Amino acid sequence: MIAFQGARGAFSEEAARKLAGPRVAVLPCERFEDVFRSLADGRADGAVVPIENTLAGSVHENYDHLQHFDLPIVAETSVRIVHNLIALDGVTFGRLRRVYSHPVALNQCLDFFKNNPKIEKTTFYDTAGSVKMLAEEKMRDAGAIASAVAAEIYGARILRRSIEDDRQNFTRFFLLRTPEYARRHAVRAPKNAAWKTSLVFSTRNVPGALFRVVSAFALRDLNLAKIESRPLRGKPWEYLFYLDFFGRVDSPNVENALNHLRELADYMRVLGCYPKGA
Amino acid sequence: MIAFQGARGAFSEEAARKLAGPRVAVLPCERFEDVFRSLADGRADGAVVPIENTLAGSVHENYDHLQHFDLPIVAETSVRIVHNLIALDGVTFGRLRRVYSHPVALNQCLDFFKNNPKIEKTTFYDTAGSVKMLAEEKMRDAGAIASAVAAEIYGARILRRSIEDDRQNFTRFFLLRTPEYARRHAVRAPKNAAWKTSLVFSTRNVPGALFRVVSAFALRDLNLAKIESRPLRGKPWEYLFYLDFFGRVDSPNVENALNHLRELADYMRVLGCYPKGA
Repeated sequence: MIAFQGARGAFSEEAARKLAGPRVAVLPCERFEDVFRSLADGRADGAVVPIENTLAGSVHENYDHLQHFDLPIVAETSVRIVHNLIALDGVTFGRLRRVYSHPVALNQCLDFFKNNPKIEKTTFYDTAGSVKMLAEEKMRDAGAIASAVAAEIYGARILRRSIEDDRQNFTRFFLLRTPEYARRHAVRAPKNAAWKTSLVFSTRNVPGALFRVVSAFALRDLNLAKIESRPLRGKPWEYLFYLDFFGRVDSPNVENALNHLRELADYMRVLGCYPKGA
Repeated sequence: MIAFQGARGAFSEEAARKLAGPRVAVLPCERFEDVFRSLADGRADGAVVPIENTLAGSVHENYDHLQHFDLPIVAETSVRIVHNLIALDGVTFGRLRRVYSHPVALNQCLDFFKNNPKIEKTTFYDTAGSVKMLAEEKMRDAGAIASAVAAEIYGARILRRSIEDDRQNFTRFFLLRTPEYARRHAVRAPKNAAWKTSLVFSTRNVPGALFRVVSAFALRDLNLAKIESRPLRGKPWEYLFYLDFFGRVDSPNVENALNHLRELADYMRVLGCYPKGA
């Protein structure tokens, strides 16, 4: 059972099927925190969460949850985000007065709203959930923006396909497991596949601290894929850093870099090691 | 005239008065983009925008606007965020059924809502604006969360002071001017004051790129204050970096570091150089 945020048909569900198999059982949750908690409590045996979008940036709330929960990342994937305009069967485009969706999705379809000024954007907590709501409330003057799968699940129709402004729209997702599960099912990946490791650290607030950390990787020819800063609670203007680099935790090179980082950092934790996603 | 986002009494107005003088004329704007546009169009001669909060993190939208507009940062300050529960005169605590505020403010007062489960959190586009709305709609069963100044401006009363969960709650603001204004009014600051420089860059997507950039500063004993990444539009999984360091653009050391950075970066722009705020 894989937990994800949103209603059935959410992009997170698509990611869950890519990461855990097309027929996996899913547990839709209302909030990101519930997704993490479902896995921690044993109601689910996996959790799928979005971590960054190529247009909107990082999902900071999930970085914070990765830090607070001890649920290792065991896989990543990315999903191309295609936003479709969806309405109930028999509802024509001309009858739409409002379109519901998640604020991020609405903001990624601004050209559509500019070209159709009579249609009002209306924020809703979830993309697929807005299609579900159309169906439950039998709304005949409103549409929703969501995935094609959401239209199918709730028996609605796609009026316009791919109305997003920018097609370079991808979201990266992590699959999380419990520490026990991750230990028992060490991931088998092709021997020559690239691996990534994600970690979180804070440095002592001294000059050159970040330079030294970045050096610990560069001196060992380990390449960074991403670095992200988040405020450190209780220490104004100090930061936690989330770092992804290419490498496997069990390679001697990476072990040395991590030991070096432990010398430099006030706090450090590996969040997971997983094959680079497609 | 200083533009800021929010209604009169917003925390941004407090920052504007700290940055441009207590009696400065202000121009409240609905959206951050309007704030930047007001200054670019000449309707305002300064703009004040929040850039990061010690609990919620960076205001990414404003990083994006700094990149798209050519409006140099000339000063920074930070404001302690004190959230007060506010209602119209004569409305007692027991009558409150709903409390309006900006979602970030509501999320910073979760203990209050946990202890008062009969009061519903209701999102509104702005903190001070929610007090204005109480007054305009003469709401007698609702409150708002906003600054003490907002209560004063709209003739409302503070029912509970400082209801935020965490007092280490500060927001950092930038004062922006036009390039011409910044040139004509070069800031005079005490000779020994610390200065900061903010810039944005993207690196070629090659191994060790970030290490080399960070080295350009470390090799010259220039200390970083902050680094922030944002997605690069049209290039999935590549990033723009926003970097703040201690130093003045007209010192030889900084000039050398910036020349070195120009060698390494695909793109680089200095966003401003300003005295370190209190």
